[in-house]
This record gives sequence, structure tokens and C-alpha cells, in this order.
Amino acid sequence: MSTQAESVTQSDVDRLPLDIERIHELAEALLPVSEQIDADLPVEDRKLNAKLVELIAILHELHPADVAGLLESLPQKERALVWHLAAPEEDGEVLLEVSDAVRETLIETMDQQELLAAVDDLDADELAELAADLPHEVVYEALKTRDEEERAQVAAAMSFEDGQVGAIMDFELVSIRADVACEVVLRYLRRFESLPDHTDKIFVVDDNDVLKGVLPVRKLLVADPEERVENVMATDVVRFRPEDDVEEAALAFERYDLVTAPVVDANKKLIGRITIDEMVDVIREESEADMLNMAGLQEEEDLFAPIWDSVKNRWMWLAINLCTAFIASRVIGAFEGSIAKIVALAALMPIVAGIGGNSGNQTITMIVRAMAMGQLSGSQARRLLKKEVGVALVNGLIWGSAMGLISWLLYDSPGIGLVMVAAMTLNLLLAATVGVLIPVAMEKAGRDPALGSSVLITAVTDSGGFLIFLGLATIFLL
Amino acid sequence: MSTQAESVTQSDVDRLPLDIERIHELAEALLPVSEQIDADLPVEDRKLNAKLVELIAILHELHPADVAGLLESLPQKERALVWHLAAPEEDGEVLLEVSDAVRETLIETMDQQELLAAVDDLDADELAELAADLPHEVVYEALKTRDEEERAQVAAAMSFEDGQVGAIMDFELVSIRADVACEVVLRYLRRFESLPDHTDKIFVVDDNDVLKGVLPVRKLLVADPEERVENVMATDVVRFRPEDDVEEAALAFERYDLVTAPVVDANKKLIGRITIDEMVDVIREESEADMLNMAGLQEEEDLFAPIWDSVKNRWMWLAINLCTAFIASRVIGAFEGSIAKIVALAALMPIVAGIGGNSGNQTITMIVRAMAMGQLSGSQARRLLKKEVGVALVNGLIWGSAMGLISWLLYDSPGIGLVMVAAMTLNLLLAATVGVLIPVAMEKAGRDPALGSSVLITAVTDSGGFLIFLGLATIFLL
Repeated sequence: MSTQAESVTQSDVDRLPLDIERIHELAEALLPVSEQIDADLPVEDRKLNAKLVELIAILHELHPADVAGLLESLPQKERALVWHLAAPEEDGEVLLEVSDAVRETLIETMDQQELLAAVDDLDADELAELAADLPHEVVYEALKTRDEEERAQVAAAMSFEDGQVGAIMDFELVSIRADVACEVVLRYLRRFESLPDHTDKIFVVDDNDVLKGVLPVRKLLVADPEERVENVMATDVVRFRPEDDVEEAALAFERYDLVTAPVVDANKKLIGRITIDEMVDVIREESEADMLNMAGLQEEEDLFAPIWDSVKNRWMWLAINLCTAFIASRVIGAFEGSIAKIVALAALMPIVAGIGGNSGNQTITMIVRAMAMGQLSGSQARRLLKKEVGVALVNGLIWGSAMGLISWLLYDSPGIGLVMVAAMTLNLLLAATVGVLIPVAMEKAGRDPALGSSVLITAVTDSGGFLIFLGLATIFLL
Repeated sequence: MSTQAESVTQSDVDRLPLDIERIHELAEALLPVSEQIDADLPVEDRKLNAKLVELIAILHELHPADVAGLLESLPQKERALVWHLAAPEEDGEVLLEVSDAVRETLIETMDQQELLAAVDDLDADELAELAADLPHEVVYEALKTRDEEERAQVAAAMSFEDGQVGAIMDFELVSIRADVACEVVLRYLRRFESLPDHTDKIFVVDDNDVLKGVLPVRKLLVADPEERVENVMATDVVRFRPEDDVEEAALAFERYDLVTAPVVDANKKLIGRITIDEMVDVIREESEADMLNMAGLQEEEDLFAPIWDSVKNRWMWLAINLCTAFIASRVIGAFEGSIAKIVALAALMPIVAGIGGNSGNQTITMIVRAMAMGQLSGSQARRLLKKEVGVALVNGLIWGSAMGLISWLLYDSPGIGLVMVAAMTLNLLLAATVGVLIPVAMEKAGRDPALGSSVLITAVTDSGGFLIFLGLATIFLL
């Protein structure tokens, strides 16, 4: 079973937002009778019953992907109600589409029977995707009804880690031999009940299933029926190994405008394929993960997660932030004597720290992005550093002078103004240097350069900024 | 002309990073003789000449998308050299693939003749995409060689704004009537030299070009040849209007796993189509723009832009940051009297401000993301606010107490400890409230909630944090 793009029941995409608002209203109105609904008892109140009928009608019209988006947008009680009312034959699809956090909340509400029914129609790769979140008995029972080949496929897919091509490949392959005529291929295809989603090419293999090439459907359709496949097929194929990184695969899909691509094992034997819809999810998740990581959230969060779950998702970065803030605080503490003498320092020091953090974040974001796109290798680090230091110097002199002038006028002290200029320039230089070095070092260490980079750079520019500013002030103003 | 996924000359995606490193080396080695190369003069030095030959060989083997990525990763001088050596017949494709910032630097190095040759092979929609960056004479000359229909297509595509479906749709349509047999369709298709890229469905129209449905190729291939198109086609089609927002379209492609979709005018007449490769670019650019905006970069930046260009790209957010930092500084200034009496306040206040900023950024990032996915409407704001305030309260009590205890021990003053607990909790509550309200207000005002949200929240939590902490300290400790 697969989502069929062509059978979307919405005749117009614009309708969707309206439906969601209406469903929210209906679900909220039905909350008081949710116990009856849960027990499949009739709702006596006439008006409420009309609303129930309307809600069910809307839900059964929606595409599984829309149901998934809807469930993610609903608070937990309304979500449980809507999930109970949604078309059960689409349960499996919906579970595949929702975010991990929401999937857990949905599975919790289902008994073993419902779960088995939900996963019954799924392909082997889809079952493997859900398996980690399902109770063991359900996976065990679900596998019992599958044949040998499918069980092997599920096991194969589950043996790869998240982030590996093997974990998201599917097994719906149409393959042919190279030595047949295109007409034979067309006749062969006609014997299928239906072709897999996204079939933009047919895989050409030899007797041992070794990949020889691909026959794009759009070439098959215009080819002379007498022509043999080997004369039409493309042999320079972008192929993947199941151990490959999915983000690399997604970049290749993006670069070469692929719709599907074969996955081969070490002996070049065709074992599966990956499709653009999975790659789009990878791209979306990758950039989201970068954004969430930079903001200090560990993972995608259910919008309406219980408070305690949210606290757990966020505590780590808050704790790290507190530690770095504490270090910055101790730096200031070391200069308490200076601040006691010139209280103005206390008011000016956050400006120096702030501009360093902002500028460093600009640098690091640009570099993290270039690295994600595979455009930056370590050998260019020196050159980039030179450029970023140049930018920091210009910015430091411009903005430092502006703020130096203001400080001078404000506190009627040219000394404070000059210290401001020097401290802002130096902290911007520090930010540029560390902004280049952190992601380069992270990548060399084989770690994700996005992870925590923003927190790290702010830590450096805060403590560094306070140290530079208060240090200079202590030396020159006291 | 279009990028053909099947003819990628890399036989293995893994080869690419190696090539890029090698090209960097070669380009750097050839820099001293770049003037001869530019003038197409022979390079006398034997070793250098060998390197030149190697570089040209590698470049002519690369896919245009790889050349584009490579050019983006090169410093300006090396970039000009490589661009001069790349296969001229692919120039148009490469210009389409590179980022806007880099495209400008490439076009600058080309004369009118080269530019005309580069755009000669492009489709109407591709020419329209480049037109804004090309000199007027070049566009004028390029249009002269096109026929009436193509000129109209270029004009149509250019009449839409960036971000509208009309600006990225293409005109490579294969359409058929509903009342013919599938066999006739197959014979009709065979008369084409080649089918457009990504042809996963054929559009079914009536005599007036009004869209009646779509015939998925994978259904055509398995259909009974005698069957009429109207009995096989899908009539519930996700279609777009040229005025539609591309980000909405990309979400629909993602949800319904589309590869292509028709674009129709107000009379439902078929006028173009959009394809998944463009949507992938939209998704990538959208999330990048959010990341860059949050970090305070106005637009995607050429990694090796001249220093002055980088300064211009970054000055605005730095200026805004300085203004908000200055306000925070004045808040502190108002409490100089208190700080003079208890210098410890100066050391502790950045902790209160920092945790508020970090926590507020967590909240706002989560909400901006949910809004981008269309999962959050204004009506849920109240409920979300309640949840976020709850999370803030828990975090405030936990982390506030921890830091309060530390402050108490550090400064041997239970009063300072209690003020710390209260200030951190209050600032976290402020961060949660503003973190929900800023994006909701931005969206109600019809603005992009990502834009500047991070700077705004930090401004509030900085000034607010200083005010709360120093205010409480002044009231209770002095």
C-alpha cells in the first residue's frame, strides 16, 4: 500500500486550512461526550450528533498525510478523539506520516488488535519503519502473516541505523533483462496489477541481479518497440549502498534531479531503491534538526506535549547555557573591584558581549550551511578565516566607533569611549576566529557542526567580551 | 534542454568530494598563469600544462550541478579560472544552478557573445529565471531568436513575482484528450523525440485546454490498451494557480508525494506545470532563509564575497542588535546606584538575561517551525501559551533554585539567592509569553514569523531580565 498522489480527494489545496479550523471547532465541541464516542455509544444530544456526523465525514475525506498534519496540530484530548474517528483503513499510513513524538501518543491509545489491523496493509519497509515504536508482540504477530521474502526484507531494513540509506529504502522493484526488446518490456509491465509509486525508471539487471543500467520510463515510451533495452538504457547510474548516509543521498537527489535511485550491495546486486518523497523528508528533517539544535531543543517536540516532556526535551541546553553563563558571571566577578570604582562598566559590558555573539552567529551559520551543502573542506579554512577577520575588523571599527562616541558623550569620558572601540573590535575578531574554527574542528572530529555551535560561540563571546572589556578598562581607566 | 538524471557521468557519488579537493589544488597551482589561460594562450611550463589538461578533463566530465557547487566553493580568482575552463555548452545550466550571489560574479566575467551562447539552449522558463540577472541587450537578443509562443512564455513567467508558482512553472506539457484509447496515447507519445523530464503523468484536457484530469504514466503502462483514457485517468487532481505561493505548493508536494502538478488559470485552462526538483529547491531555500534570518544575515552569502559585500549583508541585524543592546544598557544604567552598593549584582545579571534568551529561543523556534508546516493557527495560541508558561514555571523553579543556592553560597547572602530564584522564574515566564506572542502577532500582521524573531526575543529577555533582577534587588536588598 502506498500513498497515491493522484487520488487526493481534495480537489483544491486551498480548502485545507478551512477544514482544519472547522475540525478544531468540532473536536472541541465534542470533548464533553468523548467517553461515549470512545465506547462507540450513540450521542443523544441532537446538535452534538450532527457535529459528530460532520466530523466523521470530513475525516474520511482527508488524505492520510492531511490527517497526520491535523493530529499534530491538535491538543492531546482532541487528538485522541479525532484519531478514534479517523478512517481505520488509513491508520497505518497516518502513523507513518506523523512525527515521532506524536506517533507515540497515538500508538498508546490503540490496543493490539487495532495496531495489527493498522500495519496489515503496509509494505515491508514501512513496517520496519514503525517497528521500533510498536509493542514487540505486535511486530511479532505482524511478521507471522508475511511470507519469507517479506520477513527478510523487514529484518534487512531494521538492521540499518537511522540515517543510513538501508533504513529508508523500499523493495518495490520492477527489473528487466538487457537483451529484450522494448515491446516485450511494455507487455511485461502490462501484466502488473499496478506499478510502484514514483516508477520513473525500470532497473536493468543480469541473471545474478547485478545492476546493469536503468531504463527511464520516459525513454521507454518514445523508444522504437523493436529496439533492445541495452541500446536504450542509461549505464551511468547514480546508485547507493545501504550503508550510505541519507543526507548525502538527498544532496545527490537534489543535484541530479532524481526521482528514484537503485540501492546495490557490495557485489553490485540490486537490493532496493530509494525515492524522492523520502529524500524530501530527509531534507526537511535535516534543516529542521539544524534549526532546533541551534536553538537548543534536543528533538522535534509535540506542540502539545505534556509539560514534563517539554521540560525533558529542553533541559540539557538550558543546563549548558547556565554553566556557560555562570563562567561568564565569574569573569565579571573577577573584576568586581573595577566595577565598584566605575559603575558605568556594568552598563556597557553587555553591549560588547552582545555584538560579539550576534556577529559570531552570523559567521557560524554561514559556515554550517556551506558544510551541509558539501561546499566547504578543511583546506579552505585558512582563507575563510582571513575573510571573516577582515569583515570583523571593518564592523568593529564602524560599530565600535559609533558606540565609543555614544559612550564618551554619555559618560563624559573619552577613555571609556576608546576602551569601548577597542573592546568591541577585539571581541568581533574573537567571534570571527572562533566562528570559523568551531565548525571546522567539529567536522574534523566527525561531529555535526550545527550541534550546539550557537551555544558554544555565545559562550566564548560572552566570557571573552566581558574579559576583554573589563580587562582593558582595568588597565587603562583605573 | 534539461538536466538528465540518467546521464550523470559520475559512476559513483562518492567520487565527488575527492574531485573537488583535487580541483582546488589544480586551480590554485594554475593561478600564476591565469592571464595566459584567460587569453587562451598556451601554457609553456610543462608541469603546469599537464595540470591544465587534467583540470579541463575533470571539468568536462562533471555534471552541471556539480560544476555549480564547485564554483560556489572556490575563492573568486580560482572561480573565474575554473569558469573559463568549464564546458561552454553547459554554461546555461550552471548559471541556473548556482546561488544568486555567485551567479552575479560569473555573469560579470562573460561578454555578450558568451552569454548569448549560454542561454541559447535554455527553455523559456529557464531563460525567464535568468533574465533578471542578465544585461538587457542579452535578453533582447536572446528573445529575438525565439518564436512567438516562446516569447509569450518568457513574458508570462517574468510577470510573476519570486515566490509565486507562475515564476517557476515550466511549459513542457504533454496533453491528450479524454476520449481516446490508451493504445492511441502510447502511439502518440512514441512520435515525440523525447518526453519532458519528470513526466510521471500526462495531462488530460478538453478542446479548450481545460484540465479534465491526469493520466499517471504508471497507470498507462498497466492499462488495457483498448481502455479509454477517461476510464483510467484520475480526476481529483492537486492543481495550482500561477498566483499561488510556492511554499504552499512545496508543502502540498511533500504531503501528497507529487512529482509534477498542473498549473491552471482562472478558467481552469492548463497553462504549465511545476516539478518536484523545483519544489526541493524551494524547501531547501525556505529552511535556509529561516536559518539565515534567525542568525541575522539578510540573504544567502557568497562564501568568498569581497569583505565589503559581506559587511553590507550583515550590517542591518548588527545595527538592530546594537540598538537593543543599548536599550538594555540604559536599563542597567538606571540601576547604577544599586550596583554601586552591591557589586555582585553586575556579575549575576547576565545569568538571568541569558537563560531567558535561551529559553525564549527554544519556544519561538518550535512555534515558527509549526507555523511553517501550517500546523498552527491563531486559535490555538491561548492553549499553547498556557503550556509554555507551565514549562517556564517548572524550569524557573528548578534552575532558578539551583542558581539561587549557588549565589547564596557564593555571596553568603540568602537575600541574593532568593532574588535570583524570583528573577529567573519571572524572566522565563516573560520569555515564554513573548515567545508565543511574537510569532503569532507577526503572522496575524501577514509577516514572516521567522524574520528577526530571535533578535526580538533576545531584546525582550535582555532588557526584561536586567529590569526584573535589578528591580527586585533594589526593592528587597537595599
